[in-house]
Amino acid sequence: MFSAPVRALDLLLGSGSPKVRRMSEVSETERERYGVEPGWSFAVRHRVRWSECDPFGHANHRAYFEWFEEARNRYLEAAGLAPLSPNSPGPVIAETAIRYYHPLAYADEILLTARTVRLGRTSFEMEYAAWREGLCALGRAVLILVVNATGEKTVLPPGLRENILARDPGVEMGAPR
Amino acid sequence: MFSAPVRALDLLLGSGSPKVRRMSEVSETERERYGVEPGWSFAVRHRVRWSECDPFGHANHRAYFEWFEEARNRYLEAAGLAPLSPNSPGPVIAETAIRYYHPLAYADEILLTARTVRLGRTSFEMEYAAWREGLCALGRAVLILVVNATGEKTVLPPGLRENILARDPGVEMGAPR
Amino acid sequence: MFSAPVRALDLLLGSGSPKVRRMSEVSETERERYGVEPGWSFAVRHRVRWSECDPFGHANHRAYFEWFEEARNRYLEAAGLAPLSPNSPGPVIAETAIRYYHPLAYADEILLTARTVRLGRTSFEMEYAAWREGLCALGRAVLILVVNATGEKTVLPPGLRENILARDPGVEMGAPR
Amino acid sequence: MFSAPVRALDLLLGSGSPKVRRMSEVSETERERYGVEPGWSFAVRHRVRWSECDPFGHANHRAYFEWFEEARNRYLEAAGLAPLSPNSPGPVIAETAIRYYHPLAYADEILLTARTVRLGRTSFEMEYAAWREGLCALGRAVLILVVNATGEKTVLPPGLRENILARDPGVEMGAPR
Repeated sequence: MFSAPVRALDLLLGSGSPKVRRMSEVSETERERYGVEPGWSFAVRHRVRWSECDPFGHANHRAYFEWFEEARNRYLEAAGLAPLSPNSPGPVIAETAIRYYHPLAYADEILLTARTVRLGRTSFEMEYAAWREGLCALGRAVLILVVNATGEKTVLPPGLRENILARDPGVEMGAPR
Repeated sequence: MFSAPVRALDLLLGSGSPKVRRMSEVSETERERYGVEPGWSFAVRHRVRWSECDPFGHANHRAYFEWFEEARNRYLEAAGLAPLSPNSPGPVIAETAIRYYHPLAYADEILLTARTVRLGRTSFEMEYAAWREGLCALGRAVLILVVNATGEKTVLPPGLRENILARDPGVEMGAPR
Repeated sequence: MFSAPVRALDLLLGSGSPKVRRMSEVSETERERYGVEPGWSFAVRHRVRWSECDPFGHANHRAYFEWFEEARNRYLEAAGLAPLSPNSPGPVIAETAIRYYHPLAYADEILLTARTVRLGRTSFEMEYAAWREGLCALGRAVLILVVNATGEKTVLPPGLRENILARDPGVEMGAPR
Repeated sequence: MFSAPVRALDLLLGSGSPKVRRMSEVSETERERYGVEPGWSFAVRHRVRWSECDPFGHANHRAYFEWFEEARNRYLEAAGLAPLSPNSPGPVIAETAIRYYHPLAYADEILLTARTVRLGRTSFEMEYAAWREGLCALGRAVLILVVNATGEKTVLPPGLRENILARDPGVEMGAPR
């Protein structure tokens, strides 16, 4: 079912249960069903909640930021980062943006994808997308790895970098501008 | 402008700036404007946000819990509790409920009131209400005072009890059932 | 895998794809894994989001109301109610409450269950629970079926009643108090 | 108390009660207290809610989008746009971004400012900022005026344009890129 690169990735990834890793891959069926473009391999699924929609009948724009945060956290955990906590290095958002293409409504089944596009020493840049019959919204975030309790910037651990590069081979190098 | 009991309360309350305390009293003008019943003296003001409303065009039921939490926190701070933090005693919710009487819509100006109705040793019970041309929603919560970092129950400090009793003289004694 | 009563229910339920229905049953594996007590058969799964947790490190109490709303909506859809929209009958909350037993933290995998406990003519009462190594929170809601656009109360459709009774045979009859 | 340009603006603005308008101006006291830079005149006040903060102890990044949405809505109402509803023209977000400079914590008193920076025929661009001892976060949004019920783009009403230009004289002309 999985293509070769993904199987290779499975060997590289040292963390997370096999089930979690398998669940976070975009399958070919899903790629077609949701209209996901090439270049994205990590995904979480979601059904738009009633409480995420506003009186225009659409998912409120802030809900996408929550979804993308969830996709980011799971992506980083799958790549070997410890689950977020005040005492271990975690991503702090320096900047984030979303461009909205098609509105989403209550009960819409969507696929949320995440990928890294740039790796610096202590900072990196990710992209996120929401899919349903094609691209509905595209997001990006510039992130800094920080130990929250001390506020100190942290160098991206080598294992995390390797896992990210194995998953997203197109990553550019250097600090996000 | 303020009636005698309120001035007496001002003398008792040892914490918070005079401005904050004054701002959190229900004025007679407001009492009439919002249709607030007797028995409530502490209030915060709010205008319903767009992001708090759902596709039915009404404030989603979970928004009221956020408003009442804010009213609770400010009430307790005005009564002398340190602002919430993991290392000082703070209220943990054992149980909470809301009865909804009239829906609220985007941009509605509302008054949120809070009062204590029962005081135990480490637990207490509060009520909250949302007002706009009369009562729109009535809430209650059973709260336990806990130091979050250790998880330990804490006896309600005597100063806090006094300030609560000065504000809400009708409080019953004994642990909430 | 499924026990006999569940297969009988599958025959009764006229709406929803088989996949959706199958996904919303508590499996025996899950019953054990999450410590779900007997008397609950409908469930949705969730992983606690970072944005649902507060500085105490726990899921904020209002997140449970969002989860239970999602469980309610899916339960009612699985029982044949059209997905929520302003022009078709939908549940309006008259009253809702939650009792919290054990806190939940970021990334906790939880099971959210829903059941009907009382059926009136235009109103009904449901219960909800959050499970992780046993019961973490128990909720209830008194609901009225209303067409939002007109504000009119609606009699519970016979098909909906039948499906609810097939799923939750212990339902009591009569309007919630 | 108000400087000359603001008084002139008061004469121009045809909508909203004088009280609302007065409340949404940055006073000189506030400008100093919050460290607001020149070029911003419209503001709403907020105290960071407990439910807006995450386990890092900071306001979660999505809360800022809710605050800026509230500031945008009030700014547009003060400039003469009817309060948001599905049947009248309202701003739909094409794109939005925030850059975070300093974290905010529970109970922080903040000032949220809004201004228009570019006006097209049916679209426009706004900026938002959160202030507390200087700039804490800077946001922008590209907005399209749409009647939600029909989905049709709408030309910005002349009165709205005039009020915006009176408030924010530095606005550039032409569609946001």
